[in-house]
Amino acid sequence: MVTQAEYLTGNKEGIEEFISRFDVFLFDCDGVLWSGEHLFEGTVETLELLRSKGKQVVFVTNNSTKSRADYKQKLTSMGIPATVDEVFGSSYSAAIYISRILQLPSNKKTVFVLGEAGIETELDGEKVPRIGGTDPSLNRLIGKDDYADIASGTSLDPSVGVVLCGLDFHLNYLKLSLAFHYLRHGAVFLATNIDTTLPSSSTLFPGAGACSAPLVAMLGGKQPTSLGKPSQAMMDAIEGKFQFDRQRACMIGDRLDTDIQFGIEGGLGGTLCVLTGVTKGKQDWEDGKIVPTAWVDKLGDLREGA
Amino acid sequence: MVTQAEYLTGNKEGIEEFISRFDVFLFDCDGVLWSGEHLFEGTVETLELLRSKGKQVVFVTNNSTKSRADYKQKLTSMGIPATVDEVFGSSYSAAIYISRILQLPSNKKTVFVLGEAGIETELDGEKVPRIGGTDPSLNRLIGKDDYADIASGTSLDPSVGVVLCGLDFHLNYLKLSLAFHYLRHGAVFLATNIDTTLPSSSTLFPGAGACSAPLVAMLGGKQPTSLGKPSQAMMDAIEGKFQFDRQRACMIGDRLDTDIQFGIEGGLGGTLCVLTGVTKGKQDWEDGKIVPTAWVDKLGDLREGA
Repeated sequence: MVTQAEYLTGNKEGIEEFISRFDVFLFDCDGVLWSGEHLFEGTVETLELLRSKGKQVVFVTNNSTKSRADYKQKLTSMGIPATVDEVFGSSYSAAIYISRILQLPSNKKTVFVLGEAGIETELDGEKVPRIGGTDPSLNRLIGKDDYADIASGTSLDPSVGVVLCGLDFHLNYLKLSLAFHYLRHGAVFLATNIDTTLPSSSTLFPGAGACSAPLVAMLGGKQPTSLGKPSQAMMDAIEGKFQFDRQRACMIGDRLDTDIQFGIEGGLGGTLCVLTGVTKGKQDWEDGKIVPTAWVDKLGDLREGA
Repeated sequence: MVTQAEYLTGNKEGIEEFISRFDVFLFDCDGVLWSGEHLFEGTVETLELLRSKGKQVVFVTNNSTKSRADYKQKLTSMGIPATVDEVFGSSYSAAIYISRILQLPSNKKTVFVLGEAGIETELDGEKVPRIGGTDPSLNRLIGKDDYADIASGTSLDPSVGVVLCGLDFHLNYLKLSLAFHYLRHGAVFLATNIDTTLPSSSTLFPGAGACSAPLVAMLGGKQPTSLGKPSQAMMDAIEGKFQFDRQRACMIGDRLDTDIQFGIEGGLGGTLCVLTGVTKGKQDWEDGKIVPTAWVDKLGDLREGA
């Protein structure tokens, strides 16, 4: 077990040696490459440096609001060259899980989505029928008739066999009521991820785990199966796709309990923590629970390894 | 400790004896007198019977969406005579706590409300300044500018010293974001109650505890101080107002972990569980944790004690 993390900022030789240990770098995005719309200094150059050294780069994100194509576009618009195949999002992970692993009865194939278009796009790509999500008819207050219609089942789709929760900017009481009733009727409870907060504008906003929290509370604490970091279902899917030696792979992220844990539990050769997101310094891992292999103040500090 | 509950339905003598033990009956409302708009059979007659025997009746409700005046109106419209003073709601309990017990700095007196008009009315009655709540300008999706404005504090009111969560039919991502940032800036975290579900239309919908759940998750599990059942702050306030012998008082409710626990922890002479709400039968208390003194299928069964 690693108990001490190596501080690499300003240590050129240390950085070069660290980079040389790996063929593959898995990147968390929000809080590592950027925060909201703000690209961190040195992100582009660092990625260029790694690519110039022949490293495989994979963008692994728990942000469920964007599809892989959306993410590629975001990366490109920020000056980071990327292909759709290099992007691995929690919505894609969830769509793969539902379509290829979950054995749903033939009359229970529909997914009720609590989340944004990114989830819908990935479900559509896997030909998984879906309702809810961005359906504008659900963007309203609950009405008197809704209570009776939900209670009687009139407004419930009997083919729903899964409730999938992601980050939902359109979260409301009506959608939570519908999701809860599908779960009560036996739907499988899935989440793209369970991050409780979302880093944005250099602070935190509600994350997917905050959006599913009302349902967890209503179910007496029953947690959804998460298809995002640190769930190893996601790591297995990434490895299955990219076919790499885990000992020669490094996870880079800003969160101990998702990114770093994800890399450690996945048996990767290394993990690197950056301080541009949730984690604020080594005091955050001095309890020894989840300790990264190394850390830098910001991703761009790796440029010194050129 | 009571380990066995007495079943009173159909037991005329048992009912008469049970009623004779008490001077005061505290009633939970939703799930006991009615569910949503549906008044249970025998409710009116049972209350008449108790009044005819000279019993003090108090309507104790965790439903924060209605003020005491709203509740009196609901009771009256359903044929149940009642006065405002007989109604004791969690919004009133919270307003009393904020205005008379909580010592807020003079520049931190404002309450950010996540909830409905019932809370606002009771806060206004206690002259507590408030924002949020039913403010229509917050009934919208979060916008791009909101992230920056919340992060910088521009859209935050510096006088907010309390976040008070109740049942909020207008719950949305923007309001949760604002509430979270007030809490991060040191606001006291209060809840009218923490019931995770609300009985309505003979089933369950999200309760106040589901509305505060995203914030609890974002705060890493930190719970709000609850001013509703089973918090004894509410029992103390009820006793202070009605001046009764707790041994001669009985709590009637449908929930073990709010109503019945409320009566037991409050040292009341008895508790009565009805099966018209959350609790479905004696299997629910056979773990011995929270056992009522007695139970009936429905409140109206007490009519046999006439």
